[in-house]
Amino acid sequence: MLRGLTRAGLGNVGSAEQFIALASKYGFQSVDIDVAGLVDGRGVDGAAELLRSHGLVIGSIGLPVQWRTTEEEFRSGLPTLMKNAALAQQLGCTSSTTYILPSTDEPAAPFMAAAIRRLRLCAQIYGAYGIRLGLEFVGPHHLRTRWKNPFIWTMADTLDMIEAIGEPNVGLLLDCYHWYTNGLGTEHITRLRAEQIVHVHLNDAPNVPVHEALDNGRLLTGEGVIDLVGFLKALKQTGYTGSASQEVLTQQPPQEPAEELLARTKEQYDRLFAAAGIE
Amino acid sequence: MLRGLTRAGLGNVGSAEQFIALASKYGFQSVDIDVAGLVDGRGVDGAAELLRSHGLVIGSIGLPVQWRTTEEEFRSGLPTLMKNAALAQQLGCTSSTTYILPSTDEPAAPFMAAAIRRLRLCAQIYGAYGIRLGLEFVGPHHLRTRWKNPFIWTMADTLDMIEAIGEPNVGLLLDCYHWYTNGLGTEHITRLRAEQIVHVHLNDAPNVPVHEALDNGRLLTGEGVIDLVGFLKALKQTGYTGSASQEVLTQQPPQEPAEELLARTKEQYDRLFAAAGIE
Amino acid sequence: MLRGLTRAGLGNVGSAEQFIALASKYGFQSVDIDVAGLVDGRGVDGAAELLRSHGLVIGSIGLPVQWRTTEEEFRSGLPTLMKNAALAQQLGCTSSTTYILPSTDEPAAPFMAAAIRRLRLCAQIYGAYGIRLGLEFVGPHHLRTRWKNPFIWTMADTLDMIEAIGEPNVGLLLDCYHWYTNGLGTEHITRLRAEQIVHVHLNDAPNVPVHEALDNGRLLTGEGVIDLVGFLKALKQTGYTGSASQEVLTQQPPQEPAEELLARTKEQYDRLFAAAGIE
Amino acid sequence: MLRGLTRAGLGNVGSAEQFIALASKYGFQSVDIDVAGLVDGRGVDGAAELLRSHGLVIGSIGLPVQWRTTEEEFRSGLPTLMKNAALAQQLGCTSSTTYILPSTDEPAAPFMAAAIRRLRLCAQIYGAYGIRLGLEFVGPHHLRTRWKNPFIWTMADTLDMIEAIGEPNVGLLLDCYHWYTNGLGTEHITRLRAEQIVHVHLNDAPNVPVHEALDNGRLLTGEGVIDLVGFLKALKQTGYTGSASQEVLTQQPPQEPAEELLARTKEQYDRLFAAAGIE
Repeated sequence: MLRGLTRAGLGNVGSAEQFIALASKYGFQSVDIDVAGLVDGRGVDGAAELLRSHGLVIGSIGLPVQWRTTEEEFRSGLPTLMKNAALAQQLGCTSSTTYILPSTDEPAAPFMAAAIRRLRLCAQIYGAYGIRLGLEFVGPHHLRTRWKNPFIWTMADTLDMIEAIGEPNVGLLLDCYHWYTNGLGTEHITRLRAEQIVHVHLNDAPNVPVHEALDNGRLLTGEGVIDLVGFLKALKQTGYTGSASQEVLTQQPPQEPAEELLARTKEQYDRLFAAAGIE
Repeated sequence: MLRGLTRAGLGNVGSAEQFIALASKYGFQSVDIDVAGLVDGRGVDGAAELLRSHGLVIGSIGLPVQWRTTEEEFRSGLPTLMKNAALAQQLGCTSSTTYILPSTDEPAAPFMAAAIRRLRLCAQIYGAYGIRLGLEFVGPHHLRTRWKNPFIWTMADTLDMIEAIGEPNVGLLLDCYHWYTNGLGTEHITRLRAEQIVHVHLNDAPNVPVHEALDNGRLLTGEGVIDLVGFLKALKQTGYTGSASQEVLTQQPPQEPAEELLARTKEQYDRLFAAAGIE
Repeated sequence: MLRGLTRAGLGNVGSAEQFIALASKYGFQSVDIDVAGLVDGRGVDGAAELLRSHGLVIGSIGLPVQWRTTEEEFRSGLPTLMKNAALAQQLGCTSSTTYILPSTDEPAAPFMAAAIRRLRLCAQIYGAYGIRLGLEFVGPHHLRTRWKNPFIWTMADTLDMIEAIGEPNVGLLLDCYHWYTNGLGTEHITRLRAEQIVHVHLNDAPNVPVHEALDNGRLLTGEGVIDLVGFLKALKQTGYTGSASQEVLTQQPPQEPAEELLARTKEQYDRLFAAAGIE
Repeated sequence: MLRGLTRAGLGNVGSAEQFIALASKYGFQSVDIDVAGLVDGRGVDGAAELLRSHGLVIGSIGLPVQWRTTEEEFRSGLPTLMKNAALAQQLGCTSSTTYILPSTDEPAAPFMAAAIRRLRLCAQIYGAYGIRLGLEFVGPHHLRTRWKNPFIWTMADTLDMIEAIGEPNVGLLLDCYHWYTNGLGTEHITRLRAEQIVHVHLNDAPNVPVHEALDNGRLLTGEGVIDLVGFLKALKQTGYTGSASQEVLTQQPPQEPAEELLARTKEQYDRLFAAAGIE
């Protein structure tokens, strides 16, 4: 498993080049990054060299398509999807992700049909470039009633949606916060096959009742109450070998300097990976 | 287009043999019938001969699978699906149908994902036997709130669900009652391509406000207020050449003898088909 | 059915604008044209207006993807496919086609697997834009041994390949020359459902034994020995309502002026469509 | 990875019960067995108890469908496929396999299209029962020209065929004999993801030039020249955790008593698994 970073929760980590340099300095092995931005101005070869020289790979890229609104908006994002897929492939990245909100203002049943149809096309295009699509279920209780109609938020329902999509290259983005807020145990992870996990997010929860944990009230990985050693051990047991990228969503930007946050994150990753027996 | 009959709304039309004899006597060209029952005791050849000698074909068969409840129940129906598909193919029938209720006690989004997944498998199996699957949207307003969560009831949403299923052999069962209770016009039909229509149901609505028309409050075809000439003309314009089978759902069995109802139905079919220019 | 034109066999018909003006002048209703070129310099609205003012629609566009060689080459065409699909949709065109050569220098079985996989992705992308993909089987006998390994050239095998592709928006491009050189009869056409035909090509064959008819030895529509009245009647019977576009492949460019060839084509289309009862 | 047995190459190992008892006695963990036969007379619960009491699971079941000949024959096997799938699921088995011969008397391209279409349906049905389908490529050189037309025999072509099938539950049956006769190295295995391997066969090759190794000229696992330690190490590295079942095809039934062959097989499995670091 790779120690990964996203920008979320680190404050201002600067340009792509600075983010990469910092990730490398603090011992991370992958970054979740915007490929188009990374390639812009330095070309694919320059981007590859920048990553290589810092000992980094790309953990995952975002799905650059709006699949939640109109057909027109959905279609308008497809050329970018294709372009990013080609860049990602050239840079050795095989993972892209999107999240599924637990409620929606759309009528739930037609929205599910449209989501299945649209995400299937995204997966089909990604497939030509060797890229897998990870769907993130979102657990925090307050979001389940945030919009008019309940949608889905459990791992089981997300796996069922993945089956309904029916493409070989679709799986889960497993975020420990959503695992925690769904009240799941390690047995729910060890039951998965490695290929069902496309990407992993790490972060932590404050010491409040689970149903009060806010989506944007997260802590740095290892600084909260989630059983992250159990989470990582269970992941390891599935055979998952991709990135576990920190993603800390917060209401306000952090006050501390980015390097302090990176140092604390590194320390926790060291502790947690060691405790989980991940080399 | 073929003049078709189901048993619904005709009272007691007797055994399969009697139903077939009556359909033939009153000039119908197709019957929607249980194939397993038809073949039982007389074999496929006997069933084929019974149909042939009465100048009838099978309009459509029901989908013998419970796709609305548990995986176990769903799977337990698959062998019958396969058996009926083989019988239907041997008897020259290429159509099977199921209906989609407008509301459900299940959470709507996961139910849609399961429905798409299960109906896709049914379509895939049917495909091996040259059979198409028609999905019937159900329009009556009272059913939209009959169960806890709204599901889908419009033609547009059903077409979108069909696209999400994604198999070449899935289309609509178009019932004039649901077209009427959805407030659709003939332009909604003429916009369809012939192959999007797998089967057609005919019947009629009482002279009450549309939103009060009950699903089981239907009248014999041509004896109510639905613009059936417009409906049939529009169907003809799409190039649809399958059966238009009468299906009259009522709260109580009809009081009149079956033959009287059949005679009235024949008279109306004669009038409507002539007015719509269907030979 | 629409009277359609391609540029093939008409000599120099000039720019897109000139081709459209000529097609209109000689009473044609559709042109098979390069959408990117058509839009270039005049925008989508300009292209739409140019077509509209000449009473023309686009019959079909070519598949701008090389699916016969390497993965890299295949992938490199996908952005253009997507761009053209979006343009075609905006211009009201719903059809795109490609041809399948009857023999290949590639090992036949792996080439079929790659073809199915690649054409499926093309169809999936086209599907998002409401465009169908027509596959043209190629009948001339000399091409069956032109390359090392036999591939497919019959309508039956092409329909089977379409089933193996498994997408709802894939069908045949039916060219009368390939129908003729395959020794097919009208019954092979009437057996088709309308939606299995995505596009039609018209032209004619010289009075030589069928197995000597060369792929690039075609005559203007109606000036040869193919039973085009039977072909068109059978097409009409299926319910096909798309374009029947002349495509005349020849070894040398024609000697006659384009307008003479257009006048002769118009005369024959008038005769053939009348004889086939197509208004 | 589980130590598995098939009956092939062991002479007469008796009834299902005797085969299971022998497998258990010699320390094996899985048997590849006919589920219908196993359940016959003792029911699913009896079969489950028989396996459980001997510490065995089912490694894989055969695909009971003829996908290489006519549509009729193919369809006629589907009810058995479904029945066996249900039994396998109840007995905890998640794997089924079929082999692909390297040449065929059928025209290669249409045969590939039919194979893709038919095996896809098998996979789709299996999917409803949680069963995966493994395709075995067959390497021995003499079979590549045994029938009229070359088909496929490489791992790469088989992976491409699996992609063309396009279902999430299809992968490889990896037999060390076909790996060896294809001249593949361990790097061809380590490049695979675990989920691309549905099942594994073990056996060995005599000390003859690779291109002379006959399909039915195999030796007991570990008694020949194949680098089985390398093969198993590479498999382990992929994360594969299924069965590695011995399958020894020979021209004549072995002369030695079954128990002697089992003792020798056990000894070799012990040696090879230890050398490969598989616990």
